Amino acid sequence: MNKREIVRLNPPSNIGIIGGGQLGRMLTVEAKRMGYNVIILDPKPNSPAAQVADKQITAEFTDINALRKLAEKTDVLTYEFEHIDVGLLNEIESKGYKIYPSSKTLKVIQNKYVQKSILKEAGIKVPAFYLVNSLEELRNIFYNLGEKIILKTCKGGYDGKGNIVVKNIKKLEDAYKEFSDKELMVEEFINYTKEVSIIVAKNHEDITFYPIAENNHKDSILINSIIPAKISKDTEEKIIEVAKKVVETLDDFGVFCIEFFIDTDLDVLVNEIAPRPHNSGHYSIEGCTTSQYEQLIRIVTGMPLGSTKLRLPCVMYNILGSDEVQGKYCINGVEEILDMEDCYFHLYGKEETSYLKKIGHITALADCVEMAERKAKKVMDSLVIKSLEVS
Amino acid sequence: MNKREIVRLNPPSNIGIIGGGQLGRMLTVEAKRMGYNVIILDPKPNSPAAQVADKQITAEFTDINALRKLAEKTDVLTYEFEHIDVGLLNEIESKGYKIYPSSKTLKVIQNKYVQKSILKEAGIKVPAFYLVNSLEELRNIFYNLGEKIILKTCKGGYDGKGNIVVKNIKKLEDAYKEFSDKELMVEEFINYTKEVSIIVAKNHEDITFYPIAENNHKDSILINSIIPAKISKDTEEKIIEVAKKVVETLDDFGVFCIEFFIDTDLDVLVNEIAPRPHNSGHYSIEGCTTSQYEQLIRIVTGMPLGSTKLRLPCVMYNILGSDEVQGKYCINGVEEILDMEDCYFHLYGKEETSYLKKIGHITALADCVEMAERKAKKVMDSLVIKSLEVS
Repeated sequence: MNKREIVRLNPPSNIGIIGGGQLGRMLTVEAKRMGYNVIILDPKPNSPAAQVADKQITAEFTDINALRKLAEKTDVLTYEFEHIDVGLLNEIESKGYKIYPSSKTLKVIQNKYVQKSILKEAGIKVPAFYLVNSLEELRNIFYNLGEKIILKTCKGGYDGKGNIVVKNIKKLEDAYKEFSDKELMVEEFINYTKEVSIIVAKNHEDITFYPIAENNHKDSILINSIIPAKISKDTEEKIIEVAKKVVETLDDFGVFCIEFFIDTDLDVLVNEIAPRPHNSGHYSIEGCTTSQYEQLIRIVTGMPLGSTKLRLPCVMYNILGSDEVQGKYCINGVEEILDMEDCYFHLYGKEETSYLKKIGHITALADCVEMAERKAKKVMDSLVIKSLEVS
Repeated sequence: MNKREIVRLNPPSNIGIIGGGQLGRMLTVEAKRMGYNVIILDPKPNSPAAQVADKQITAEFTDINALRKLAEKTDVLTYEFEHIDVGLLNEIESKGYKIYPSSKTLKVIQNKYVQKSILKEAGIKVPAFYLVNSLEELRNIFYNLGEKIILKTCKGGYDGKGNIVVKNIKKLEDAYKEFSDKELMVEEFINYTKEVSIIVAKNHEDITFYPIAENNHKDSILINSIIPAKISKDTEEKIIEVAKKVVETLDDFGVFCIEFFIDTDLDVLVNEIAPRPHNSGHYSIEGCTTSQYEQLIRIVTGMPLGSTKLRLPCVMYNILGSDEVQGKYCINGVEEILDMEDCYFHLYGKEETSYLKKIGHITALADCVEMAERKAKKVMDSLVIKSLEVS
């Protein structure tokens, strides 16, 4: 059990967020609404989060002095991404500063091999996985697992980066060479029927589960999420049960996203954990009584958890950079979104776009997911990213 | 008819807001969500709105150079309060910069005598009102109107400032002397049974009406709003009809709040117009599909109006400074609000509190107004403003 004492932070207290992307931005908006002051740490000046925060410390995430300064100027720290040096975070914690979730949890999650090992030990079903130390080992695993594997770097991957699906033994060596300087693992390829995720929030006294999202990816980038997922009551219960076990195993306070594969036998296997609000939980801003962002602010300030009740079925689409426009941009066709009842438009204030970059999202609400999907698809078709670059 | 051309501003465009208080803050949050950049003009550094905006120009509202700079750096201007020098705004407009609502509308609204005259001319019922040029004139009006009058400065009043209710002829001279350097008017005192308000949004193609709020004041400060107002269908229709006429008379684009008295004969009389989002419309953030703040951002960017549909009955309470705490403060008891389902907490980031200062608000939603009222009252009882001043 986590013995850390939670201190109730009344507003205005100061919250530090490591990472200034869209997740940090949406966190900041909730914190500001509740009267907290927010300082962002990010290397990029005028980051999406800093635009709505009180202040940004502009420095690399590896800059211990910057991290220390952030901790000194705030009452509690959290983060919006998991690729932070846990040694540095631990150093900050050892000085008595509070970080949620803790560096210990982050360390487990950062290394996919460690993450999966701990889940497996706790009796949680995950795809078969192996550490890889040589090409020869990799070849043997490939033969054992059958026609398709995923080669992964244990650390640092996101949005498909750091993953290669290998279907052919001839491609194995190339894949291995691409990652050969990194700690590597192999996972069996799950022939899943659906990918789903659940946001779980845990504080010092309670745990809450958000409605399950069904996620559609393209090239490992999340395209859309449908809430509630079209799964049976049985599968839903199974997922909540496993998610509870995962978060209890982590034994920490925070917002966690747990991604699952549902395989052809309707078994649920944990794919990945994120120790922070997640893209597949954007829908909770308009879709739930308490958004995943407000929930994390409640947790780090020692406040009670809020209701995760779904108002209406939702469909969320990411607005992704196209392959036609690079650099500065504007968005045309927003009027179609704003003209659609119960359809919400978010743009993250990123100065530049590039192929598949997440620059915004929309959420459509309706009485059923089918109708929400139709609304969302229709308005997404009208959106055009236009270049603002002077040619 | 307003012939001004509306230009559609795609995000990211730049919006300038004159005034950095809570209304500007809530406007900014919506604009940022939609990917716009926001610059605030306010004389007080780190104003509530600037805390969530991209930039603040810190200067007096009478500083024409600052206003010009704001106009130059943005694509459109709006404001969150009405006491701005219309001559300066007009100068800005004459250079081709766009301000919504226009300085012409603001000029009418700023002067309560002119405001009421124009309404009266349009056949809209208002309390009897007279310009006052001397104490003698004031005495005569008092005799004619009967036992109770309101003496008002024509310009500059808000939250009861600039208003004196006079019930006794003996107090008339004192009241007159207090305001004697100002342009003055007298209004009959309406024995109202209710005070209600309606937010109306008008853009280049459409007009929408928000649900009517029933407002309770204490010492002319709004204490709470109950939505929908407990009025008959007949009265509701009458109010919407009059509100439409008011906004058509103003013939401009923007968000307008029209406050009404309902008298003992169930007649509806216009009390006051605000050419901006209003305290009594805070509930629309969680209570309506499109908040009054998002609606104004849609209007100034030439986007279509959003639905004003009420999700659930709401009760909004202002969090007002107490007479016990002055200066820096924190809020205790927030956990009670956060523990109440569908209850939302807003704190404006004002550094200091004082008696009756608006420092935040809460909105409770429920299946009926009675239940929302009970929830709101209960959590308001738990809130305590504590001093942070070192004694």
